[in-house]
Amino acid sequence: MNHQTIKKVELKLVRGLLDLVVLGLLKEKDLHGYGIITSIRRNFGVYFGPSTVYPLLSELEKAGDIKSEWDLTHDRPRKVYSLTAEGKSLLTGAEESLYQICTRLNEFGMNRLQFNNGVEDKPEVNSMLSM
Amino acid sequence: MNHQTIKKVELKLVRGLLDLVVLGLLKEKDLHGYGIITSIRRNFGVYFGPSTVYPLLSELEKAGDIKSEWDLTHDRPRKVYSLTAEGKSLLTGAEESLYQICTRLNEFGMNRLQFNNGVEDKPEVNSMLSM
Repeated sequence: MNHQTIKKVELKLVRGLLDLVVLGLLKEKDLHGYGIITSIRRNFGVYFGPSTVYPLLSELEKAGDIKSEWDLTHDRPRKVYSLTAEGKSLLTGAEESLYQICTRLNEFGMNRLQFNNGVEDKPEVNSMLSM
Repeated sequence: MNHQTIKKVELKLVRGLLDLVVLGLLKEKDLHGYGIITSIRRNFGVYFGPSTVYPLLSELEKAGDIKSEWDLTHDRPRKVYSLTAEGKSLLTGAEESLYQICTRLNEFGMNRLQFNNGVEDKPEVNSMLSM
């Protein structure tokens, strides 16, 4: 698979998970819109412009998952977004859903998607360690 | 978060990963369209109807990632889909991308998305085990 195809796949996957990605970034710290755009690019290696990110931010704000405040400490006022309690709860739910989806994909032979939760599920390992 | 919201989140996530899900199902075995629809519902707990799944199948076929053949052994002929070599390669790439995305989300505090690849990365654990 060439580099261009890999980029296309990544872009499509991150787009599909973009709500989760934005909520995840805001869980770490409050960000203004442009900060979210650059943070997605820096952390996930794909670029989504204002025409994708701003409508998503309004949608999330309308749903009550994030809220915004004007930051007037700079020359140009800008909206700073933060996660609400509802957004935190949504993020936890989405994280659990993604975990379940990856676990199921793993059962379908995607060996790379093997989560590190094996210890509790493997009593024989525990008993060996306690010997 | 109520049950309805959880379902909505799951639906959105699976929709975002639907190419990957369909390719993953076809990696395990060849399926006709209706078989894919029921398999998604059974394995991922969300329903996508023909109006979502069939256009996706034509798109994947047009891109050369899957191919179809008429199965004439039943009363009603039906198209059976299988993965091509390109599709297998795309699936491996997508699996790797999803792995990278989850790993990054894990670094952003999503503790549930911790992959089971820790042993090679933690030589101190290895050396303890070999003592």
